Amino acid sequence: MLNFNYYNKTRIIFGKDTHKEVGKHLKGNVKKVLLHFGGQSIKNNGVYNDVIESLKSNGIEFVELSGVKPNPRLSLVREGIKLCKEENVDFILAVGGGSVIDSSKAIAIGVNYEGDVWDFFEKGIEIKNALPLATILTIPAAGSESSTGTVITNEEKQLKLSCGAELLRPEFSIINPEIYYSLPENQIANGVCDMMSHIMERYFTNTLHTDLTDGLCEATLKTIMKNGLILKKDNKNYNAWAEVAFAGNIAHNGLLGLGREQDWASHKIEHELSAIYDVAHGSGLSVVTIAWMKYVYKTNLSMFVQFAVNVMGVEGSFRDEESIVLEGIDRLKDFFIKMGLPVTLKELGIDDSKLEIMAKKAANFNNGEEIKIGGLKRLGWEDILSIYKLAR
Amino acid sequence: MLNFNYYNKTRIIFGKDTHKEVGKHLKGNVKKVLLHFGGQSIKNNGVYNDVIESLKSNGIEFVELSGVKPNPRLSLVREGIKLCKEENVDFILAVGGGSVIDSSKAIAIGVNYEGDVWDFFEKGIEIKNALPLATILTIPAAGSESSTGTVITNEEKQLKLSCGAELLRPEFSIINPEIYYSLPENQIANGVCDMMSHIMERYFTNTLHTDLTDGLCEATLKTIMKNGLILKKDNKNYNAWAEVAFAGNIAHNGLLGLGREQDWASHKIEHELSAIYDVAHGSGLSVVTIAWMKYVYKTNLSMFVQFAVNVMGVEGSFRDEESIVLEGIDRLKDFFIKMGLPVTLKELGIDDSKLEIMAKKAANFNNGEEIKIGGLKRLGWEDILSIYKLAR
Repeated sequence: MLNFNYYNKTRIIFGKDTHKEVGKHLKGNVKKVLLHFGGQSIKNNGVYNDVIESLKSNGIEFVELSGVKPNPRLSLVREGIKLCKEENVDFILAVGGGSVIDSSKAIAIGVNYEGDVWDFFEKGIEIKNALPLATILTIPAAGSESSTGTVITNEEKQLKLSCGAELLRPEFSIINPEIYYSLPENQIANGVCDMMSHIMERYFTNTLHTDLTDGLCEATLKTIMKNGLILKKDNKNYNAWAEVAFAGNIAHNGLLGLGREQDWASHKIEHELSAIYDVAHGSGLSVVTIAWMKYVYKTNLSMFVQFAVNVMGVEGSFRDEESIVLEGIDRLKDFFIKMGLPVTLKELGIDDSKLEIMAKKAANFNNGEEIKIGGLKRLGWEDILSIYKLAR
Repeated sequence: MLNFNYYNKTRIIFGKDTHKEVGKHLKGNVKKVLLHFGGQSIKNNGVYNDVIESLKSNGIEFVELSGVKPNPRLSLVREGIKLCKEENVDFILAVGGGSVIDSSKAIAIGVNYEGDVWDFFEKGIEIKNALPLATILTIPAAGSESSTGTVITNEEKQLKLSCGAELLRPEFSIINPEIYYSLPENQIANGVCDMMSHIMERYFTNTLHTDLTDGLCEATLKTIMKNGLILKKDNKNYNAWAEVAFAGNIAHNGLLGLGREQDWASHKIEHELSAIYDVAHGSGLSVVTIAWMKYVYKTNLSMFVQFAVNVMGVEGSFRDEESIVLEGIDRLKDFFIKMGLPVTLKELGIDDSKLEIMAKKAANFNNGEEIKIGGLKRLGWEDILSIYKLAR
């Protein structure tokens, strides 16, 4: 096990009707709030009205900024920063999924910064200051409701980059499973895949002696898979939503990766897809993850045997480890298909034309120099190209 | 799953050499520190010198108070409060195990309180103010290094009572597995049992639909058992200590009990033993837990089947659930015995003479009125007496 330093200040307020109390949690701690959200969906499912009513009844001043789209855009972030400065906003309330929360985090770090907020993403400037924020999670998936990071798409540059800091963890996040009843089927599946990927990026490691986090990862993955399938059939099942939403939070709050080297190649490889083709992150991940596994499993066969046995329930002779591993990968693929997720680039409508460009971007390839990615197996742009090709 | 509200502000600084950095973490945040500890052990294993050196080299002023014993005493807490007031201490650094940390927490709540600190324990006064504190954990067991609670023994009244509040969670806790190499064998076993009990008190529940926390509890219990047995044979195994210490923290930081009704009868029943007989908490728990299981399992047979199968690895016909359950309890008892823990009151040197007195105290029995304890099965004093008798 590796040394670690873990701090997670986000209060999780979980359960029925909890979003209606948001004003109470803010009262006394804020002067003026930016209410940041996507568009129509929170108006359709009643959350918008509940939030407005709670803010008003607690006497909380606020301004609104809507318009966040999946793969949140830098242009709206800049607009949000401008608005916060003009209106002297001192707190951001994100009502939405990962995109809204990531957009809020980017606004939060830009408000007290002199330069352009994109500097934090492109130049890796240290984040020393940010407005505090809170979230009402309307799509459990990205885990951004208590994570340290934000991922923003610069639409002009076709770049999807991330940055992060401890102080970007929200002050509190409200998770009410009832809110998720109105989510469309594809968002359930994408969310499930995103959460699972957050765990697998941490799980697949060359670090030895990680019994506890191995077990926590495995339990969380199994919880998501079991309850994801329930939701596929019954999208108003409170308890299944509660398990999935809680697991999605644990998946990305940092706990499951403590003391172990992490991977994160699949995320990086997927980000190039969604930066260019604007595919849903979860759907990009289901495609990339299967191909990544097929490409890398020989690097650490026993790690993949453990996954196949402990997560996917593969049994049989341990004298042929490779067949256990391949059966495990096949079962994961079957699960994705059962959830309605794509497992090939073709299903995403992506042809071969930009595979090399994406592979080179993923590895920051530039005049023969590259920055390899991935913890389990270090991948250069040619490896990444092979993974894209395996995913066709 | 039940609604919940979870906030855990304790930073965990984990790994080799981490305790030597304590001064760096305090610098700029404190004026004068109370260094609170037990006695000779931290001087023998070098931790005391490392801490003093780190405090001095970071220019941190401090006063010392040693003398904490297992089942920490109210008298020393009162002495600590007096010292903090006289010396204008604004931060407490606990260097020790659960007893030292609990003693520190009690001092922390007493410093800014006009009355007697015992009021918080006996009268249940709300804790609104406490000095901030941090810990260097020298015995992984009690989980007090990031828990909200403290348990103090009033030696005059022979009462062992608890109180707690979110603000009692330490600011940070340092967990260095290397420090535990010098622990005597019985403290390893007691610690393992204490941690396991913290999980089992949360695990055994009548709440349904708790897949995630069920799985997290089971994974953490299995990690402790596997690595506890390694430590029994090799008490200087870094990775086994890392697993046990990390698991002990997770066991009692609140996570594993979220969204589920909890039990806590075994702890209450054990507290009466250690209040009168001054037995080690872990050794009291191994005795009480087995007896408690035998007494209550019929109340929720399927919960105990799950424990037997998922934690203790019992296989076989599910058509005879009771035999699965009894085999599970037997295997837990065998594990305790293998760790060198007692499983009968006799082994603790406790005869029948005070069983009824203890049972009545545990249920606050007073003129025919009682306050039943336990979440899984509500237990009155006669139930508790039956459990003590089963434990003989």
